[in-house]
Amino acid sequence: MKKEPLRIAIAGLGTVGSHVVQILEKQKDHLFKATGNGIEIIAICARDKNAERGFDISPYQWFDDPVKMATEAKVDAVVELIGGTTLAKDVVDAALNANKDVITANKALLAKHGNTLAELTSSKGLELRYEAAVAGGIPVIKTINEGLVGNDISAVYGILNGTSNYILTQMDKEGKTFAEALKEAQDLGYAEADPALDVNGGDAAHKLAILSSIAFSHQIDLSSIATKGIEKITLDDIKQAEAQNCVIKLIGAATLENGVVSANVQPTLVPFSSPLASIHGSTNAVLVKASEVGEILMTGPGAGGPETASAVVADIVDLAHDHELFPLNQPVKGMPEATFNKVEIGTDLPKLT
Amino acid sequence: MKKEPLRIAIAGLGTVGSHVVQILEKQKDHLFKATGNGIEIIAICARDKNAERGFDISPYQWFDDPVKMATEAKVDAVVELIGGTTLAKDVVDAALNANKDVITANKALLAKHGNTLAELTSSKGLELRYEAAVAGGIPVIKTINEGLVGNDISAVYGILNGTSNYILTQMDKEGKTFAEALKEAQDLGYAEADPALDVNGGDAAHKLAILSSIAFSHQIDLSSIATKGIEKITLDDIKQAEAQNCVIKLIGAATLENGVVSANVQPTLVPFSSPLASIHGSTNAVLVKASEVGEILMTGPGAGGPETASAVVADIVDLAHDHELFPLNQPVKGMPEATFNKVEIGTDLPKLT
Repeated sequence: MKKEPLRIAIAGLGTVGSHVVQILEKQKDHLFKATGNGIEIIAICARDKNAERGFDISPYQWFDDPVKMATEAKVDAVVELIGGTTLAKDVVDAALNANKDVITANKALLAKHGNTLAELTSSKGLELRYEAAVAGGIPVIKTINEGLVGNDISAVYGILNGTSNYILTQMDKEGKTFAEALKEAQDLGYAEADPALDVNGGDAAHKLAILSSIAFSHQIDLSSIATKGIEKITLDDIKQAEAQNCVIKLIGAATLENGVVSANVQPTLVPFSSPLASIHGSTNAVLVKASEVGEILMTGPGAGGPETASAVVADIVDLAHDHELFPLNQPVKGMPEATFNKVEIGTDLPKLT
Repeated sequence: MKKEPLRIAIAGLGTVGSHVVQILEKQKDHLFKATGNGIEIIAICARDKNAERGFDISPYQWFDDPVKMATEAKVDAVVELIGGTTLAKDVVDAALNANKDVITANKALLAKHGNTLAELTSSKGLELRYEAAVAGGIPVIKTINEGLVGNDISAVYGILNGTSNYILTQMDKEGKTFAEALKEAQDLGYAEADPALDVNGGDAAHKLAILSSIAFSHQIDLSSIATKGIEKITLDDIKQAEAQNCVIKLIGAATLENGVVSANVQPTLVPFSSPLASIHGSTNAVLVKASEVGEILMTGPGAGGPETASAVVADIVDLAHDHELFPLNQPVKGMPEATFNKVEIGTDLPKLT
């Protein structure tokens, strides 16, 4: 068993990257136990060295150039949190070519260059992990790849863009127009200043392309996903849906039938009785139909700094786990006894809060 | 890298055990790719060698005595699917003492003897896996242990007994009495002939004890979980709940506050607006509150042969993965291109079916 910690470099210190550093610092002891020998941040890199990030950068080697860091830092893995498909692509290429594993949260990069990156990763015997690229903090990649590994998956669909779902929820619940709800989402920081990819279905299509390739074990093909956004949904559409006992949601759906994949993203009438109808606000939901287990639904935050960082950290720990060969699922030796507060149950039914 | 497959023995060939064998046979090629070197069933054991099980037992070494099999079979791991806390305990002890990893779906065994078994497992440097012991086919142990590894968990609660939830759903939706709904659950095979542990909250308490010990990293303490079942719930209670915009669910809840765990199982008023209110029939649901990710909800089948077997197979693959050091999350080299059915999106909104 190797005794060294997993050494990582982090490229990109926005809200996600900064939270990754903070979680790794805060959970150091716990993660040391979980991995056997811990995780060590060696190098970091961002555009502006002097930005306020909520942590002290001085313990870490600073790079101004993420490609140089990916190539030269003495690390086992590079975490790419820059975003976009240009510089991020160069960083990931450089890391893989320097024989480093890669973790990314970058759905656009994977949707566009995933096949090439997978080939390069595979030919080098490295790992490419991307839990945070789909449905943010929900560990949906792990669930499909590992939890449902004994199943043939026939469909995967869900609410994959939190901004669109927030807008549709505000239109439905508060009677706001699309424009008003979009403005509100932007003010709250849910939507980007240029929210096009959120509301035109493009972001959901990126995620669906990745989900579908995992669920059905085929190459990513973004161009085959028919995509329609929510820009033209009116309050009248929502009223008409309600008359049919339905709510309108932006649904990304991929199915496999007789070896043929059908995948699209479009506003869809969801019956009130469906669990997807009660997914409100910026929450994401992914429903998987699988041969042995039937239906599994997972819901949770699809975006956000600490939420997305949680998924990135899970990938880092999995990599450290593979690296160290320590059984993660093992009960920890000498687990403490708990202090319990055993309250007797009364006759009145309590109410869930 | 070791080149041998993971060799396993399966003790207990009821509906879960038989489905484990069938999934491993059916998914042989896929699981070979996922693990690197495959999984080989060496030995099997059940009470009645001649029972009809839906698969051919002749390729496997047959044992009449599961303890003898656990001790003597030339395997890396023993899968315990016998159930109960007596013979199953002897089998797990024998396997661990013979330096074999163990996979079990046995929540009663873990709730009663989990601490001792964890100590023995740990002292031997072995693995004890039990994904199927909580919430059947939903990979909730993996989600908490791995997917949310960077989080501090403050609460875990949910609908942990499918039979109780089926009965409450039938009372609520069909106006059946408790006795009528219970009879129906028994006729459908959801409830055992002796359904006491289902309806008195005991089964949910077993699962909550395990969930809570994982979520909060403490020893299992079943006796500290205050437990009340659904036997006394009347149609009048349900009507009164409805008047408060609530539905009654059997909720198992564990919270951690200032280092103190509070855990109980009891019938609870769940507001219609809660996602747990729309969990109907025999479905299970687990909600986790975590420091970074906020709330994650997972729903799916809590019992059933193929459903539970799906979780057992996931544990077997994880063990094979550790055994072989092959990166499970890796895109498979030479992944095929998909055949896509790209249907143009029309102007009418489609309806989710």
